This record gives sequence, C-alpha cells and structure tokens, in this order.
Amino acid sequence: MAQSRVAVLGLGIMGAGMANNLLRAGFPVNVYNRDAAKSAPFAASGARVATSPRDAASDADIVISMVSDDRASRAVWLGDEGALSGVKKGALLIDSSTLTVSWVEELAKAAQAAGAEFIDAPVTGSRDHAAAGQLLFLVGGSDAALERAKPVLSVMSRGIVHLGPVGSGALMKLINNFVCGVQAVALAEGLRFIENSTLDRDNALEVLYTGAPGSPLVKTLGPRMAARDFQTFFFLRLMKKDLTYAREEAGRLGITLETATAALSLFDRAIADGNGDKDFTAIVEAVR
Amino acid sequence: MAQSRVAVLGLGIMGAGMANNLLRAGFPVNVYNRDAAKSAPFAASGARVATSPRDAASDADIVISMVSDDRASRAVWLGDEGALSGVKKGALLIDSSTLTVSWVEELAKAAQAAGAEFIDAPVTGSRDHAAAGQLLFLVGGSDAALERAKPVLSVMSRGIVHLGPVGSGALMKLINNFVCGVQAVALAEGLRFIENSTLDRDNALEVLYTGAPGSPLVKTLGPRMAARDFQTFFFLRLMKKDLTYAREEAGRLGITLETATAALSLFDRAIADGNGDKDFTAIVEAVR
Repeated sequence: MAQSRVAVLGLGIMGAGMANNLLRAGFPVNVYNRDAAKSAPFAASGARVATSPRDAASDADIVISMVSDDRASRAVWLGDEGALSGVKKGALLIDSSTLTVSWVEELAKAAQAAGAEFIDAPVTGSRDHAAAGQLLFLVGGSDAALERAKPVLSVMSRGIVHLGPVGSGALMKLINNFVCGVQAVALAEGLRFIENSTLDRDNALEVLYTGAPGSPLVKTLGPRMAARDFQTFFFLRLMKKDLTYAREEAGRLGITLETATAALSLFDRAIADGNGDKDFTAIVEAVR
Repeated sequence: MAQSRVAVLGLGIMGAGMANNLLRAGFPVNVYNRDAAKSAPFAASGARVATSPRDAASDADIVISMVSDDRASRAVWLGDEGALSGVKKGALLIDSSTLTVSWVEELAKAAQAAGAEFIDAPVTGSRDHAAAGQLLFLVGGSDAALERAKPVLSVMSRGIVHLGPVGSGALMKLINNFVCGVQAVALAEGLRFIENSTLDRDNALEVLYTGAPGSPLVKTLGPRMAARDFQTFFFLRLMKKDLTYAREEAGRLGITLETATAALSLFDRAIADGNGDKDFTAIVEAVR
C-alpha cells in the first residue's frame, strides 16, 4: 500500500517541526505557507510546495492545519483558494491549531459537507517538542477517524489522547491552559512575596521547584520570572484569551472558575500596562 | 566526642518517624509525648522516656519539637513543666512544627533568655517521608546554629534549605502551602469542568498529570479528588488557615495574593458545608 500523502498547512515554528518529522518518516508531503519563503527549505527535503491551501489539499489523503488562531484556520480551510474547496472525497482533515470549540464544530460540519472526515487535534508542547517529534495530541473525533490519523500523528508525538467527539481536543487544551494560567499567577504572587521578604530568593524558589508544587510549568517559568526574562514563548494576551474563554465554556457547563477570575484580574492589569505582547512570564509585573 | 543527646517532643505521625530515624542513626534520644502510651515503643528501641518536656530537655544537647500548632508548641516549651524551664545552657532548640512567624519570633526570644540557641525548621513531606528520613527542612536561624543542627537534621531528611533569619522557615512553609492551596483549587475546578463536559475523564486527567501543570501535588490529589476519597492527610481547615495567614503576611509585605482570595472563597464554602475536618481534597465539593 502506498504511503498516504500528507498536506501541511502552516509552516510556523510548530508546523515546520511537524512537516520535518513527516518527511523524515518517509511520508510524501505537500506544504503550504502564506509567506512562501518559509516553504523553500522543504522543497529541498523533497516536499511538494503548493501554491494555495486548495492546491496542497488537491492530491492529499490527509490534510493537517497548524496555524495561529480561529481566523487563520478559517482562512486556510474556507478562504479564497481554501483547502476545503479542493479536498479529495474521503480525505481526513486534521486541525492541530489551538481553536475555539465553536469554530471546531463549524469546521467539522464544513468538512462533512465536502465529503471529508475531520478531527481536532491541538497539541501540548513547544517548539522543541515539535522539532523532536515529542508533541502530545489532544484528539476530538470518531474512533475510525483517529485510527486513520494515528500513523501520521505518531511520527510527530510522544502520545495521542482521545478525549471524545469533535471539539474535545479544543476543550481539553482550554482546560489545560486554564490550570497552567492559574499556576503561573500563583507562582508570580509567590515569587513577589519571596522577593519582598528577607528569604533567600534562590533557596526559596528551589523549595517550590523541588517540592509538591513543582510542576514542569513552575520549574520552567520560575527562573524566567525571577530573572524578568520575558522572551516570548507564549504571548501574555493569548493566555488571557484562553482564561477568558475557559471561564465562558465552564459557565456554559454550570461551573464557576474562581481562580480564573482572580488570574484574569492580573492579566487585565498586565495588558493595561502594555505587556500583552510579552511572554506570559511578564505576569509577575502585574502583582501589586 | 560523644554523640549529642537529642530530645524529641511530640510523637505524632511526624515526630515518631523523626525519633525512629535518630535512634537508627545511633543518637541517644529522649522522647516525650503528652499521651504517654505513644512513648512505650521508643523505650524498647533504647530511648529514655521523659515524664515532661522539662525532664526531656534536662540532659539534652539538642531539643526538637514536632507538634500540631502554635498552641501546642507554646505548651511544650513554655507551659507547666515546659522544656524551656529545664533546658541546659547552650543547648540548641529546634521547632519543626508548622507555626506562625510571630510565635516563632517570640519563641526565639524566650530561648535566648534561657541561654539557648534556636532555629525554626518546619518540614515539607508527609508521614511516609518522615518514616523514610526523606523530609525537607526549611530553616530559619543563624549559620552557626544551623551547622550544629545539621548532623541531626541530616538523618531525617533528603535536604536542608537555609532561608534566612529566625522565622524564615515558617514563612517559607506558608508560601509553599499558599502555592499548593491555589494549585489544589485550580485542579478541583478543572476536574469539575471535565466532569461536566463530554470529555473522557480519565484521559483528560492524564493530560493534566503528564503535562505542564503536572506537579507532584496535582498528581497526588487528582486521583483522590476524582474518586472523592477524602481520607485525611491534611485537614481542609488547616489549609484554609494557611491561606488566610499567607494573605495576611503578604499584605504586611505589600503584596496582594489575588489567587489566595479566590481559593479562600471555596475553602470558606467547604467549611460552611461541614467539610473542614475532611482532607483538603474535599475542596472539589465546593466548586459551584
């Protein structure tokens, strides 16, 4: 059986790592990126460089989108020369971007109307995980669609978690980011508490890192917050967006997220202070 | 040089584990416990069973208290037949209980007046860590006093962290518990969010445990919260007390802990619901 041809839409930091791992694993790959300059290195690695999302999808068995948000996802699938206008009957479509549940549900309906299957499969992990094929995919969709996706997702990941029907991946990502956002704010408040006291700062942080609250997030963010290193890994304004949206979704399910409300009071202040485009470690400056 | 004789005041779950490790390491040990029945097994292991804190301290070079709170600590040091009334000149006194900064400072002055040295050295870790000699000591006091304490603390611990002057151990414990308390509430809210959704609960929790927010605390509490297992490791009302006190101390240092305020709104509700004497995992029932 010939290998499935896979189209990758979006060659940002994450999509580029994913496309490289697909090529390395021997899949025939089409790539598309809005800024064509990013596609060139992939041509050298044997990918077919498509001129539009539609062109990329036209001969692909599986199409994966990895773009920045709902708007970019809508453009790549439904826009002018969008992938859905050229997709093969029976193709499997995967969106690995971080999207809202409502857009994912709309997209799944559009895929169905085009005769394609769809799963949402956002990821946890950063640039390094994407490059190393160590992402974690959070999947919403049918068992059958996920089975088709597995050979492709496997070469990019350390794990694939099936969470429920279409939209479940998006919802899980949101809950994960909510818990992370609150942990980040509690860490920032704890750090400022430590800094304003007579405690030895580095020893005190070490207690947090090596003790019960020492999550990978706490261990990664703590040293950067302490150094006021705001080099961007994840925009502060995007974390605010996720916390806001998590609170709304939870409200729909009858749950109040008191800690999200508290965290948001700091994110609002940080954005008012002009720090929205810094890394979300800059939340440490919003503690008063 | 003869081994220092060590008095252990308080043979609860934590103190008993500590005394056992001192005996195992070959220290001559005196033990005192309010309920004398708990002392008997230590006599069989070679400890001298004292009739009062004063008696326990009378021939000890180092006296360690491990009791439940400020009130019990005050009783054991300053009460009727209290240890300070019998302490040897130049002895080193250590309180490993979880105490308020203000009581620790008062106790340090009383120790000085009795001609003794003092450090506060509360611990992180639970029963199992105490039994295995794997506690982490959070120390406040002078370098010289800590140097004297090290041979004794070492046999009970995986680490000793010096955080600053007297009271610093108590303050660090409070900050640690604040961060843990907030993480627990965010986890409880996330769990209820998951439970009210169509997400596969166990897969969703696994994402939190193995991902960025997966602290030892989250991994330990999550399964117990999910199972509504409220077997007591740490009373809910004590976590509420620590969060309240952390917020007060932070306020004195000019810092507002917004996430503590949010967490406390759930702890207050849990206590109003009659859950104060359950484990603090019962906070999951306070999510609305």
